Amino acid sequence: MSCAHILKRFENELQSLRIRKAVIFGESNIAYLTGYKGSGFLVYDLDSSTITLYVPPLEFWRAQKQLKVSARVVAYSRLVKSLSKEQFSSVDERNLEEIAFGILDSSPRVGADLSYAPMELFLKVVGSANLSDKVVDITNTLRALRSVKTSHEMEYIKEATIRTERALKKLVEELESAIASKQNITLGSIKGELIKLLYLEGLESLAFDPIVAAGELTAYPHPPTIPERSLRDSAHIVLDVGGTFNLYSTDVTRTVVLAHNEREVRPLLEALISAYYEALDAIREGVSASEVDAKARKELERAGLKDYFVHGLGHGVGIDVHEAPVLSPLSSDELKAGMVLTLEPAVYFKGRYGARIENVVIVESNGARVLNTLELAW
Amino acid sequence: MSCAHILKRFENELQSLRIRKAVIFGESNIAYLTGYKGSGFLVYDLDSSTITLYVPPLEFWRAQKQLKVSARVVAYSRLVKSLSKEQFSSVDERNLEEIAFGILDSSPRVGADLSYAPMELFLKVVGSANLSDKVVDITNTLRALRSVKTSHEMEYIKEATIRTERALKKLVEELESAIASKQNITLGSIKGELIKLLYLEGLESLAFDPIVAAGELTAYPHPPTIPERSLRDSAHIVLDVGGTFNLYSTDVTRTVVLAHNEREVRPLLEALISAYYEALDAIREGVSASEVDAKARKELERAGLKDYFVHGLGHGVGIDVHEAPVLSPLSSDELKAGMVLTLEPAVYFKGRYGARIENVVIVESNGARVLNTLELAW
Repeated sequence: MSCAHILKRFENELQSLRIRKAVIFGESNIAYLTGYKGSGFLVYDLDSSTITLYVPPLEFWRAQKQLKVSARVVAYSRLVKSLSKEQFSSVDERNLEEIAFGILDSSPRVGADLSYAPMELFLKVVGSANLSDKVVDITNTLRALRSVKTSHEMEYIKEATIRTERALKKLVEELESAIASKQNITLGSIKGELIKLLYLEGLESLAFDPIVAAGELTAYPHPPTIPERSLRDSAHIVLDVGGTFNLYSTDVTRTVVLAHNEREVRPLLEALISAYYEALDAIREGVSASEVDAKARKELERAGLKDYFVHGLGHGVGIDVHEAPVLSPLSSDELKAGMVLTLEPAVYFKGRYGARIENVVIVESNGARVLNTLELAW
Repeated sequence: MSCAHILKRFENELQSLRIRKAVIFGESNIAYLTGYKGSGFLVYDLDSSTITLYVPPLEFWRAQKQLKVSARVVAYSRLVKSLSKEQFSSVDERNLEEIAFGILDSSPRVGADLSYAPMELFLKVVGSANLSDKVVDITNTLRALRSVKTSHEMEYIKEATIRTERALKKLVEELESAIASKQNITLGSIKGELIKLLYLEGLESLAFDPIVAAGELTAYPHPPTIPERSLRDSAHIVLDVGGTFNLYSTDVTRTVVLAHNEREVRPLLEALISAYYEALDAIREGVSASEVDAKARKELERAGLKDYFVHGLGHGVGIDVHEAPVLSPLSSDELKAGMVLTLEPAVYFKGRYGARIENVVIVESNGARVLNTLELAW
């Protein structure tokens, strides 16, 4: 992790907002700044140059182990009263509300990623009349910071992508041989095998619940999981999957055309690939995200498919599989060098079938770099 | 789903709060009331006896398919302006904030599960001075409703438990034979195989990222996932896992003692099993959750292990794997017949090793019914 570099950028942002103290509630924001991902909250104090990570007792040792920055870890909760102090080198016996009130009350101006604050805490403490006017919402500051990746972050996303693609490729090879030998294959067995292959490639977790759809289920952007459904007679299968590596996610989709009925799906895939390349060609620093979306949408319009593309073209990817920026007709984001984006053109014919492809790309000053190495059409 | 029965209970609760209109934001709350789980929000209007589910366009068809109650599904987002109206039988071209403001402004008293409201929406709309005094927080109303299960809900949790246990049992059999044939086994391969077996048992998703820990990783209540770590020379392995069935979760933990070094772990397991039975014996309607926790803790104290049990004894389980009630020394919950709980006594020796067992039980008027069938010690 290049946490020192990231912390420096964060500190600069706080200074430009005239904030000397910040409380970070979002799990992914804490992971971004420290390397620890789990319950708890972070207090960043520029005056004393200290970082304090408050966690429940059950996360205390893991937090100490996973921290990539110099920070004090404190076990909080009134539960620790009943536990041996030898277990925890640093404890705070107050509950979350009491600790948060103490921090907010001690400083005239505190930054907080309010969009990630626990709502119950907010309703009781942060939003109370005497405190809310001293709290500055830094949700968007962190979103913007996180949207532009360091070279380390790019490497982790690339590694997640390459390993996820290896698992996908193996799955499709296994599928082809199972189909050739006329085995009955269920969507549950495909999903299970795909996830197993991801762990065998050394990915540390799933970035999201993978999508494995065939038949009319491919007409849903987010299909229900029906484990017992047979693959038999399906013209194609949509696989949307991503693992995480060093906390960072990827997100890859392939539509695999099976041996039969391929005349239905091939023309769709060709239109999606054209839309993908139109969008890819438009990517460079300074271009608006909505313009990139429009390029893909226009190409689908040319193929008579515009009305069947019912979501945005893509999204930023990082610690969260969906993060800033947003690529859609409604987006006001502007692309910056170092952003890592998915491009996922798709078509869905209601009640019938659909198709989607998805790659991950890095925005550069003068173009885009694709992280995927798998072919788009299978 | 027995959604009609659940809706009736919910309606009674609203009436006793003198609420005629409610907005539900929590994904699990919406799933509880309708059968649809995904992005969106629900508007419940007692005066017109209508339920309206607002979803993004990409979830429109799935929502229509998964609804178990009579409700109107509306695709919202300004994106639909650019899409063919034939695709969506019902659209609202406003964004979430505009729709929410309209609902809140139209009624003198609106219930909302505020703890699940999107914070950005709350900061802009719900929390604004002219609206916040007409909004009644029904977060705890829904938590309390959901904590007492219908017979259907119990059946789904039981089915999830039995299927999860079948996968666990197969995994351990495979593990034993792999160990006997001296194969090198990694934690990643165990985790992948476990998840594959869950899908082969027909579970529809993971209730949470399964825990697969061996060696000093068992000393962490929530250990990091290290896929490449070998099982070699580990005295035992901790497996904490649960799939979902018909939206409902389970949560099962077993500590599997391997062939070697079992003298370290066996006595711990015996203490955990005694603690589990002490707690189980205390469960019945009307008992406080903290008392059940205390029974287990006292038994661990007798074995000199009290300081090493650093979390609560258990939690409610349902659509969410962690829901009301809480079993801990700090809990103020009282047990009611129909609650479904986990009991998960554990010990963790910092930096060395630990062990945990976990079962799911139903509170009855005069005792407890255990859903698990697997033996506690392996």
